[in-house]
Amino acid sequence: MTDSLTRNIKHLLTSLVLQGVHDFVVSPGSRTTPVALLLAEMQQVRDDVRVTVDVDERSAAFFALGIAKTAHQPVVLLATSGTATGNYLPAFMEASISHIPLIALTTDRPTELQQIGAPQTVHQEHLYGEHAKAYTAIEMQDDHADVTAYIDYHVQELVGRALTQPMGPIQINLPLRKPLMPKLGEAWPEVTPQRILVGQRQAGWQDIQAIAALLRKPKAMMLLGPDEIGWQTEKIEQLAAHYQLPVLADILSNFRPSQYAVNGIDSLIAADVIDDSLIPDVVLRFGGTPVSAKVITWLREKEIPVIQVGQEHAGHDHGRHTHTTVVADPDTVISDLLAEPGVKNATFLKKWQDLTDKLMSVVTTEVANTVEYQVPTALAELPENAKLFIANSMPIRDMDNYFVPKQRLQIAANRGANGIDGTVSSAFGMAMSGQPTTLLTGDLTLFHDMNGLMLSHQAHVPMTIVVVNNQGGGIFSFLPQSEAAAYFEPMFGTPLPIVIERIARLYDAEYKLVDDLAALSDLIRKPATRLRIIEIQSNRQQNVTAHRDLTTAINEALS
Amino acid sequence: MTDSLTRNIKHLLTSLVLQGVHDFVVSPGSRTTPVALLLAEMQQVRDDVRVTVDVDERSAAFFALGIAKTAHQPVVLLATSGTATGNYLPAFMEASISHIPLIALTTDRPTELQQIGAPQTVHQEHLYGEHAKAYTAIEMQDDHADVTAYIDYHVQELVGRALTQPMGPIQINLPLRKPLMPKLGEAWPEVTPQRILVGQRQAGWQDIQAIAALLRKPKAMMLLGPDEIGWQTEKIEQLAAHYQLPVLADILSNFRPSQYAVNGIDSLIAADVIDDSLIPDVVLRFGGTPVSAKVITWLREKEIPVIQVGQEHAGHDHGRHTHTTVVADPDTVISDLLAEPGVKNATFLKKWQDLTDKLMSVVTTEVANTVEYQVPTALAELPENAKLFIANSMPIRDMDNYFVPKQRLQIAANRGANGIDGTVSSAFGMAMSGQPTTLLTGDLTLFHDMNGLMLSHQAHVPMTIVVVNNQGGGIFSFLPQSEAAAYFEPMFGTPLPIVIERIARLYDAEYKLVDDLAALSDLIRKPATRLRIIEIQSNRQQNVTAHRDLTTAINEALS
Repeated sequence: MTDSLTRNIKHLLTSLVLQGVHDFVVSPGSRTTPVALLLAEMQQVRDDVRVTVDVDERSAAFFALGIAKTAHQPVVLLATSGTATGNYLPAFMEASISHIPLIALTTDRPTELQQIGAPQTVHQEHLYGEHAKAYTAIEMQDDHADVTAYIDYHVQELVGRALTQPMGPIQINLPLRKPLMPKLGEAWPEVTPQRILVGQRQAGWQDIQAIAALLRKPKAMMLLGPDEIGWQTEKIEQLAAHYQLPVLADILSNFRPSQYAVNGIDSLIAADVIDDSLIPDVVLRFGGTPVSAKVITWLREKEIPVIQVGQEHAGHDHGRHTHTTVVADPDTVISDLLAEPGVKNATFLKKWQDLTDKLMSVVTTEVANTVEYQVPTALAELPENAKLFIANSMPIRDMDNYFVPKQRLQIAANRGANGIDGTVSSAFGMAMSGQPTTLLTGDLTLFHDMNGLMLSHQAHVPMTIVVVNNQGGGIFSFLPQSEAAAYFEPMFGTPLPIVIERIARLYDAEYKLVDDLAALSDLIRKPATRLRIIEIQSNRQQNVTAHRDLTTAINEALS
Repeated sequence: MTDSLTRNIKHLLTSLVLQGVHDFVVSPGSRTTPVALLLAEMQQVRDDVRVTVDVDERSAAFFALGIAKTAHQPVVLLATSGTATGNYLPAFMEASISHIPLIALTTDRPTELQQIGAPQTVHQEHLYGEHAKAYTAIEMQDDHADVTAYIDYHVQELVGRALTQPMGPIQINLPLRKPLMPKLGEAWPEVTPQRILVGQRQAGWQDIQAIAALLRKPKAMMLLGPDEIGWQTEKIEQLAAHYQLPVLADILSNFRPSQYAVNGIDSLIAADVIDDSLIPDVVLRFGGTPVSAKVITWLREKEIPVIQVGQEHAGHDHGRHTHTTVVADPDTVISDLLAEPGVKNATFLKKWQDLTDKLMSVVTTEVANTVEYQVPTALAELPENAKLFIANSMPIRDMDNYFVPKQRLQIAANRGANGIDGTVSSAFGMAMSGQPTTLLTGDLTLFHDMNGLMLSHQAHVPMTIVVVNNQGGGIFSFLPQSEAAAYFEPMFGTPLPIVIERIARLYDAEYKLVDDLAALSDLIRKPATRLRIIEIQSNRQQNVTAHRDLTTAINEALS
């Protein structure tokens, strides 16, 4: 008969897989020994399990986040005891807000070594506080027969909890006592899968009729924020067609391109070109917080009634303005709305389509000059099925305003807490989908997670990184502190003496420095075969001027 | 009259300085704007304030830890809202256990933006949980006159709390509302300094007499663990002389070299060469958990009575064996013990001195062959006043066994939680002392905190890094999992395809590859003038064999 350590860990790992875990991200350490070795063995005996090793736990957690948000699956992390586990906190903060089901297995020292000065021993209980949806500790070396049954039930139920709307990350702490070597090469147990059904609150019949009546008003429109649940864009397009709705489509809505999509709302508001005839009577809102800060303020200032639908984000409106909140599954609500009578009149839709077309033509005439507008143009060449990860700060804002892909792509960013940390690793997580993946980032964000580049070796996936190198933090030049001239560069601009080509050399990456749109577009059309870093140099001050000039140009052309 | 934001932040910063803060480590971000700008201004108007910018918050926190543990002063961190603040957790875990007074100023979004989907807004309250000694949130934009007085009192009192034994890190959360621009160029306020006296529990008179009587036994000895309070080594040497005590001096005790110091206790126990005549009747123990794991087990197995003295570490004995715990200030206890009658008989001391001498001569004959013994020999050449930071895993263990500097150095490591994260940054923190500083590390630990290398630019301090490159995690080869051959390399060895010379090039460092003791010693004698990376290549398997051969050689020579 096998020992309790080996048996219980096999039940733990099998239970995780039964509830839909396929990816495990491991950061090595002594205390992880039995879990890591049995995981390696499980990978040999099951073909639905994939293990990636990442030495830097902060990077590992953001990598897992990228896998989970791309595949819409739970992903497991494994860390050794001590400060290693603390490195997961930034990604847990992001996962908690953007509802990503990460599962951290934090190995720990046993009870008898706690708080008496044993090495590598820290308080790991409830380590992520409010940033984890659930916490449990499980003894893996307890011989009692009930413990194994408890693991089968409890671990599966915990994964179910992580996957219940609103989804979120959980921590499973595993105190482990020496000896830590499991028995290898023995048979794996059969574990009974639990059927976990996620209940859904639906909008009632009267609600749907009332919403449909509002959508039939002459000037109804939709606001699609970031998609975090993998919604059906085809059905959203059917809904837009059914009620002739223009759709304010966030860059992360995955709704572009579409004849119903309006992009650049932030620019349009900034340029003050939205006249009263374009103000909607009602807005139907789905998804997370939009990238555009101005759209939220605009909705409130124009006193536009907003109906917000969703399980995760319902009630989350930092404009503090939402008129009606519908806590329900968006796909169900859309089906119900499609069953109600629609409208034929496309006047309002047409007006917004015209405005978008004019905006893009003004932007296009500006493109020749400025890197920040050339990049979205070139990225539009991304081939079908390509995936795109966008860094926070300036890249996500520019892309939200000006990016229209030629075909629908899966696009992601870490927009829960909007950190610049872990971006490279999250993009590698996206690349684990096996589809060609591109990361668009600035130089500071690339630097912050440079260790993530090691994943090109550890995860064996190719990726293209487009770095807009403006030698520091570009976004601060748009903020009031740029006027505090004496202190601005050292405290905010923070230029770093990093040479991108040397980073590429360090990680054996293909490197290209490009300075024109044609060269960039050519590269973008060809997927990378290994790690490829494309650098485009920019200038923070010129960028500010270009953005301001563009706003003036839009105002003049569209007023 | 100045606005409340500017006034209150000036009072906050001045209160921190009044209680002994001189170093501020800033990671840029929008929400930090008023604090960062006023800090930059304060640096202009006061010459006792130093500000360093570090883009990576994880690195910043470990850097602050290094400064604090070297200077024995509180150090302030400043981060923007969101995941940035989460990056401090690993260093807070270490600071909490090793009693370092870090003060994190975490800027936050105001109440009206919490939990409703506002960007970059996370739960920052009590973010570090049990890993912070105190938490508070202070409104900086409240006009009420009492608020400014509250800041003067409360902030000074909080620093006092961080500095009270056992010392520890604290979090001050600062919700800030836009507009964030402070008024620059105005006069700074006078803040009344508070006098905060740290009470000390002392051992009573009977206790001291009883301990002194035990130390007069024929076979009494001392165990000095890591020094985290900056104790007076001269007084410890006087105590050893007074009672003729051999001192088991941990590498981090800062007690080597001394005629009373015994090093290599871990090797001596491993080689089974400590005969009964060397077993002490009693051990007087000061300081943190020793690097040697074996010495703790040995004390218990031999049933040696241990008297543990200290405020921070009293009661922390993971051998669960301490006989008497004295919760008192070590310096006071030593003074009292020096006032009691001592002993003249040095027989027991002489025996241990002989053993140490013999051990070192066996080690010396082995040195010619193996990198891991050559490195301590070369580092013994470090000049007076030099500082040395040692990475965890194998370097700290080898140094604990075989390192005897020619003069007393300040030596540090992160031995609270023993993480490999943040090591480069902590070493740069040590270098902020202005003394020549050397970091000894393996390649994995260097990689984990590669971003810390940016501090050579941001902090403008030189440092030497000696990298023993064994292409992966050397310590695992000593553990049982090394026998799981099929899974060992990918799960534990984790060789990374990193070329150290390319890291040096990326950070504009001087680079030397050395392969003999003489060349390494020559380099060690000359302090670095900028960042200097010295690589020595090693082999994990040969290292295991060499360690085992050495144990055999010690056993044969000393039995």
